[in-house]
Amino acid sequence: MASTEQKLSKLEHLGAALDSGALAQVRRILNSDLQAADVAHLLESSPPKERKLLWDLIAEENEGDVLQHLSDELQTWLLNQMSAQEVANAMADLDADDVADVLQNLPNTVTQEVLTSMDTQDRARIEAILSYPEDSAGGLMNTDTVTVRPDITLEVVLRYLRRHRSLPDMTDNLLVVNRRDEFIGILPINKILVSDPDITVREVMSTEVTTITALMEDTEVAQLFERHDLISAPVVDDVTGKLLGRITIDDVVDVIREDADHSLMSMAGLDEDEDTFAPALKTSRRRAVWLGINLITAFLASAVIGLFQATIDQVVALAVLMPIVASMGGIAGSQTLTLVIRGQAIGHIDSKNIGWLLNREFIVGLTNGILWALVIAAVTYVWFMDVQISAIIGCAIVINLVVAAISGAYLPVLLKKLNIDPALAGGVVLTTITDVVGFFAFLGLAATLYL
Amino acid sequence: MASTEQKLSKLEHLGAALDSGALAQVRRILNSDLQAADVAHLLESSPPKERKLLWDLIAEENEGDVLQHLSDELQTWLLNQMSAQEVANAMADLDADDVADVLQNLPNTVTQEVLTSMDTQDRARIEAILSYPEDSAGGLMNTDTVTVRPDITLEVVLRYLRRHRSLPDMTDNLLVVNRRDEFIGILPINKILVSDPDITVREVMSTEVTTITALMEDTEVAQLFERHDLISAPVVDDVTGKLLGRITIDDVVDVIREDADHSLMSMAGLDEDEDTFAPALKTSRRRAVWLGINLITAFLASAVIGLFQATIDQVVALAVLMPIVASMGGIAGSQTLTLVIRGQAIGHIDSKNIGWLLNREFIVGLTNGILWALVIAAVTYVWFMDVQISAIIGCAIVINLVVAAISGAYLPVLLKKLNIDPALAGGVVLTTITDVVGFFAFLGLAATLYL
Repeated sequence: MASTEQKLSKLEHLGAALDSGALAQVRRILNSDLQAADVAHLLESSPPKERKLLWDLIAEENEGDVLQHLSDELQTWLLNQMSAQEVANAMADLDADDVADVLQNLPNTVTQEVLTSMDTQDRARIEAILSYPEDSAGGLMNTDTVTVRPDITLEVVLRYLRRHRSLPDMTDNLLVVNRRDEFIGILPINKILVSDPDITVREVMSTEVTTITALMEDTEVAQLFERHDLISAPVVDDVTGKLLGRITIDDVVDVIREDADHSLMSMAGLDEDEDTFAPALKTSRRRAVWLGINLITAFLASAVIGLFQATIDQVVALAVLMPIVASMGGIAGSQTLTLVIRGQAIGHIDSKNIGWLLNREFIVGLTNGILWALVIAAVTYVWFMDVQISAIIGCAIVINLVVAAISGAYLPVLLKKLNIDPALAGGVVLTTITDVVGFFAFLGLAATLYL
Repeated sequence: MASTEQKLSKLEHLGAALDSGALAQVRRILNSDLQAADVAHLLESSPPKERKLLWDLIAEENEGDVLQHLSDELQTWLLNQMSAQEVANAMADLDADDVADVLQNLPNTVTQEVLTSMDTQDRARIEAILSYPEDSAGGLMNTDTVTVRPDITLEVVLRYLRRHRSLPDMTDNLLVVNRRDEFIGILPINKILVSDPDITVREVMSTEVTTITALMEDTEVAQLFERHDLISAPVVDDVTGKLLGRITIDDVVDVIREDADHSLMSMAGLDEDEDTFAPALKTSRRRAVWLGINLITAFLASAVIGLFQATIDQVVALAVLMPIVASMGGIAGSQTLTLVIRGQAIGHIDSKNIGWLLNREFIVGLTNGILWALVIAAVTYVWFMDVQISAIIGCAIVINLVVAAISGAYLPVLLKKLNIDPALAGGVVLTTITDVVGFFAFLGLAATLYL
């Protein structure tokens, strides 16, 4: 029994073998002791040089299995170093949906070459999946369905299954179709086991089924799986009603993970598939773009301050305190922004409840604005012994926190309407708003007062 | 067939019925047309007043089913308004693991009352689960295992199953145990279907199984499920080897979602279970704490600026430019921080590869530092026509970006060692560092030069 403890110690053995340069031993552990998913995890957790070394030690017949467990970014990197024939060989034993996933990361010319080198049936299956967008149900589905007709008995189904000797992974239901291949219901495997063998499929099949249409977005598919605790679900052509394939929970789990990671990573300007151990040069280039975008924001804020140089020259305490106003606005705004972006991602927010949310955030912004304005004004007074500055910073805090709350709540909705990813753009736009409003309110009030 | 389109239109009907006050119709849709998971989703997406109205319209026999699909926060809110007897009634038809989940959100006295009102067998099952921490495999498992002995034939297994007429949800394997109840392997349901009925369980069972020990952390369980594409896995006592229960993918999906949400929400100081539609007062109180913590950071940064008031008084352009240094450091640092926190969450980062990562981040910080320092220095020169200020801001940018990169990479590792949640504390500590270092480097260099 391969318990987790044993597996951990295998990984430790591997580490020791790698360190001591015992490559034959490393090769043995990689190709026979560890499962493909564990090897993939090891590759993901390794710096580039070790990664290359490990990959070269993986036996050719295991390459495909390991590849399908890797992130898109790593797949692309490895595949680009292989010839079309090598790719085709590595893909030979994989499921059609996994092959399609991998091929989507290759240049079109290579994909064509790989497809040409396959047999006709495999090619047709993969081309069917490739014809749908990668982030749709069609791109996620597999074509390995086991179908039965409604009018046969369970006894016949059992005999048919025994003749076939094996069922695809994650088969919790057989799919019931009529003569025109139209989907009419599911026959849960468990029902076959516990029911009287003499009754027909129609009598035990279930027609209350969550079906998925081929063009449904993958995030919507994931929400359906999560909400209804599905293991697999049939994919049906929405026009003809014909059964096209099925989606299984293992692929949906990947979508859930990617979706959730997407918000987190995008808010820092990173790709959800970002390779933790990408080489320095690649990393620098990507991050530079994000820093450049944020630099524009920073210069905008500076420009606002620049308008009030004369005032700052008069009262230098303003320069000392102004970051507090901007920073509190940024923090308050990003709380609201994060909440709304998460709410959008899990489908909680729509046009009907956004009004209530905006209103709530306004109240929260005002309440916390007043509360912290009082605290900040008090501290400021103790520090600078100047009632005017205290009053000014207090007012600026209230203004900025209210603006932050409303922007944080409304920005994601607006960006989504404009088809801009709120997780990616929301933070930058919000910071621009809270910086500009914060500096403008604080220094503008001061300028008016000290005129 | 309940397709998604039909379900959507049911929800629309419900909205219309609610708006027009046709409560009888709302009640019918809630209790017969929609599934419990959809009703739960509807409650999650509703503001407090509507939420209360909807909950009151849900039939008592459906309450438990809906409850188990709600977030912890909403469960607690609703349960606190129910008597122990009502809770017990609502829980009557649920699986033991779901009941345990719900009970964990109640005060101890109420939990005891609910347990007392149950029959002995149910109580024993639930108490077994409650004896493990909520975030452990034991807290996640269910006790509804179907076990078989290794020496019987599949024919006997089939007869046994037919006598029982139903199998628990998500049963992809029967669990094989010996006379002492020790776990020895799994019998995949699919194998029963496709194998010759005359052979014994021992001949077809699989012993290469990922087993889970009761005290394994739930995030580790989730990683195992994800990596090995599991639907269910047996939970075994790590000392006695006895079978304790099993964990199913539906509960693991919840863990994956919560884990992924945890990083996102914590970085904004929010709870991963945060109710999007919590009332204003509750929201204000929680957010106030986070703003208060960040205010300390902001005052620290101000204090640093305060040290250099004389210099700013001399050269007011410093006040205009200083937010740029702090902001670029903050952005660069949070990119690294997010990458490392994500890497920790999915188990990519350990003591062996953190050295490589620190080194890479140093190079990235230095490269981008120099690149953007040149750009910023150039813009500054055009703006203020002052070579000295240009040189100073350039140096400060390089210093702050390098410090930001190293802090962003090392902070999460350090915080984890100290048992502090990196996602929660990392951002605040990092901002403090990049603000303080940024202002100190920029203004300090200026003070030295303009002395």
